[in-house]
Amino acid sequence: MAFKMMDAEILSIGTELLDGSVADENGPELGNSLRRLGFRIKWRAVVGDNPQDLEAALRLAISRASLVLTTGGLGGAEDDFTRKAVSLAAGRRLILNEKVPDRQALIPARARILNSSKGSGFGFALHIKEGYVICLPGDPGKMKEILREAVIPFLSDRFKRLSANPGRILRSTGLTESELRGRLADLLSFEGTVDIRVQSVREGVDIHLEARGWPEGERPDALEAVSGKIRDRLGDSVYGQDDESLESVVGRLLVEGGSTLSVAESCTGGLIGNRLTDVPGSSAFLDHVSVCYSNRSKVEMLGVPADVIRDSGAVSEATAAALAKGVRQISRTSFGLSVTGIAGPSGGSREKPVGLVYFGLAGAGDVQTDSSRFQGDRKAIKFQASQKALDMLRRHLMSAG
Amino acid sequence: MAFKMMDAEILSIGTELLDGSVADENGPELGNSLRRLGFRIKWRAVVGDNPQDLEAALRLAISRASLVLTTGGLGGAEDDFTRKAVSLAAGRRLILNEKVPDRQALIPARARILNSSKGSGFGFALHIKEGYVICLPGDPGKMKEILREAVIPFLSDRFKRLSANPGRILRSTGLTESELRGRLADLLSFEGTVDIRVQSVREGVDIHLEARGWPEGERPDALEAVSGKIRDRLGDSVYGQDDESLESVVGRLLVEGGSTLSVAESCTGGLIGNRLTDVPGSSAFLDHVSVCYSNRSKVEMLGVPADVIRDSGAVSEATAAALAKGVRQISRTSFGLSVTGIAGPSGGSREKPVGLVYFGLAGAGDVQTDSSRFQGDRKAIKFQASQKALDMLRRHLMSAG
Repeated sequence: MAFKMMDAEILSIGTELLDGSVADENGPELGNSLRRLGFRIKWRAVVGDNPQDLEAALRLAISRASLVLTTGGLGGAEDDFTRKAVSLAAGRRLILNEKVPDRQALIPARARILNSSKGSGFGFALHIKEGYVICLPGDPGKMKEILREAVIPFLSDRFKRLSANPGRILRSTGLTESELRGRLADLLSFEGTVDIRVQSVREGVDIHLEARGWPEGERPDALEAVSGKIRDRLGDSVYGQDDESLESVVGRLLVEGGSTLSVAESCTGGLIGNRLTDVPGSSAFLDHVSVCYSNRSKVEMLGVPADVIRDSGAVSEATAAALAKGVRQISRTSFGLSVTGIAGPSGGSREKPVGLVYFGLAGAGDVQTDSSRFQGDRKAIKFQASQKALDMLRRHLMSAG
Repeated sequence: MAFKMMDAEILSIGTELLDGSVADENGPELGNSLRRLGFRIKWRAVVGDNPQDLEAALRLAISRASLVLTTGGLGGAEDDFTRKAVSLAAGRRLILNEKVPDRQALIPARARILNSSKGSGFGFALHIKEGYVICLPGDPGKMKEILREAVIPFLSDRFKRLSANPGRILRSTGLTESELRGRLADLLSFEGTVDIRVQSVREGVDIHLEARGWPEGERPDALEAVSGKIRDRLGDSVYGQDDESLESVVGRLLVEGGSTLSVAESCTGGLIGNRLTDVPGSSAFLDHVSVCYSNRSKVEMLGVPADVIRDSGAVSEATAAALAKGVRQISRTSFGLSVTGIAGPSGGSREKPVGLVYFGLAGAGDVQTDSSRFQGDRKAIKFQASQKALDMLRRHLMSAG
C-alpha cells in the first residue's frame, strides 16, 4: 500500500489496554502532539503483549504509514516484547547499544536512542524505508518526558518542511450541535476553502478547521478568515481555541480583572473546585470552595436562611441565590458562584427530576440565577453542571470586562 | 488467519478520535463489558471517517476475530460511512429495514436491529462466518444504553456456554509495583495454576487473575484460592475487586459504621469531594467539604490557629492536623480528613518541594497525620494525594471496624 509522507500510525502496546481495565493515556497524547507537528494520524491501534500479534501489527503499520510510534512493552519484564517484534518486523538484528541506560537491554541495530534529562526510561528511533519507527515506554510520565525532550525535536528537525500546523480548533459551549450547525450552515456546505468539521464533546461542541489545501504560507490567513467568520456567528459561545480549557479561560479573566472567586457546590461535589485548581497558579484567584452536601451545612456554613430551604427546597433558585451570596460574603471575594441540583440516580421527583440544576452568581450587584435540566448518568450530570456554572461566570466576566 | 471462538476486536470509528482531540470513551467501556462476558479482546483500533480505511479495517477484523464491535459513523451525517463499509466488507447489500427508527437509513440485509427502550439511536448485528459484526452509535450515552439493553443480552444468549467470567482483578494501593512483586514473587513465578498479571495504574497496582486453563466449573474455586493467598500477603493494601473504586469502598465503610465525614482540602482543590460524590448516595455519609486555598480562609472558615500557619507554614503537619480537627468540629461529623501540600508547578522550595503533601485524620480520639512526596505533574500530584487521603481513612475504618 502506498503511503503519503505525513501519515502516522500509533500503536499502544499492552494487554491491560485491550480490555479497558487501564485507560490508554498515551494514544491521545501522542495523537495531539503529532497533529500539532502537522502529521495526519491515519490509524491508532491497541495490541496485547503477544509477540505474533505485535509483529503483525508492526508490519502492517510500517507498510502504510511513514511514521509509526509505539508505546509500551520496552522494559525488562517478561511480557515486554516490543524490541524483539520491531527487530523482526524491520529486519534489524538486536544488539547491545552502549547509550542505553540499562546496559542489559538489546535494541535493534542502527537505532537512535531517545531519552530525557531525568534519564528514567528510554526510547529509540529507527529509519526504515522512507520513514521512522519510534518506540517509547508505556509509563505515561516517562513517555511524556521523552516525547517532549527528544521525540518532538527529532521529528521537527526531520520533517521540518512539513511541520507548519495547518489546523485549529474553536471550542464552544452552551449551544447544541444542531443549533451550531444551523448558524454555520452556509459555511459548512461551502466547499473548497478551509475544511470545517463539527464535533460534540463533553465540554460542548468543537469546530475543527483545516487548511491543508492551501500553500503553507497562506494557511494562517485562510484559517484566520474562517475563524473570524465563525466567531462572528457564534459570539460568546466560543470560549477558547485548541487545548484551552474553560477553567483556564475563567482563571485568566479573573486574574486580568483583579477579581477573586469563591464557590458553593452542592451536587457537583467539588468538581468545580477540582477543575479550577487544575489551572496552575489558581491560588491567585480562587479563595475558597465550600461543598455543602447537607442542609445543615448550607445554613450553618454559608448562612443560607433556614426558611429559604424549608419553603423552596435545597434544590431551588432561591437556595442557589442564597448560596452564591453566602459564600461570597463569608469569603469576601469579588464573586460567589453556586450550584445546587439532583445528580441522581435517586432523589428525583416529578417537580424536581434527576438532572435539574440551579445556578447562582453573586457579584457586587444583584445575584444572577439560571437553571438547566441535564441528561445522562451521575458523572455526566455533574460534569455538565460544572461546565454551565463556569460558563455563566465566563460570560459575565466577558460582558463586564 | 484462523481465529478462536471468543476472540473479539473493537473498532472505534471517527477522525476526531485519531488525533486525540476527543477521547475514545467507547473502546474501554466495550472492552470491559466484553471481558466480563468472557471474550478475549485481541485487538482494538481507531480508524478515521475514510471509506477505504474503514473497509480495510473491517475486512481485517472479520478475518481474525469472531466478534467485531464497531462504534461511530452510523448517523446520517456526510462523514458517516459505517453502514456502507460493513456492507462491502461483509458482502451484504444495503436495504431499507422497517424496524430502523430512522426510516431513511439503509442497512445491510439480514441485520438484526439493536435499540434501547429510550429509542435514541440504533445499532445492528450481522451474522458473518462463525461470528458477528455488531455496529453501535458513537455517542457514548446512546452506545451505553444499547449495549446494556440489547447487546449484552444478545451476546449472552448466543455465546452463553462460554460466558462464565474466568477472571478477577484485585486492586491495591499503598505499595509500589516492585514491593508488591516482591511479596508475591513465588506466586508470580509458579506456572500452571491461575495466570497472575501485575499492572501499575493511577490508583495503585492491580493484580489480574485469569483461570482460563481450568474447566469452567472449577474456575471459581481456583480464583478464590489464589485470591485468598494474595490477600494474605498484601493485607490491607487490597482495597477492592474488579470495578470497585476506593471512594465507593470508603463510602460503604462509613455507612456500615454509621459514620459521617467532612473534608478540608487544600492542594487537591475539591478532587476528594468530587470522587466521594461520584458514589451514588454519598449524601448519607458526606456532610461538607471545604477547599481552603487561602491562608485567611483556613483560619476564618476552619479555625486553624493563625500562629500555626505562621510558625509551621500552611503546608505542614501541624496545619494538616488543625484542618482535620477544624473541619470535623464545625461540621460535627464523626471524621475530619485533611490534605495540604504543594501541587506545583511553582511554589516549591528546598525544604518543601513540589509534591510534598501532609494529611490529617481527626476522629473522636487523637489526630493522626502522615506525609508523602509525590512525583509527576500538577494533576498527577493532586490525584495521588486524593488517593492517599482516602486510603488513610479506609485503613482507619477497617482497623476500627
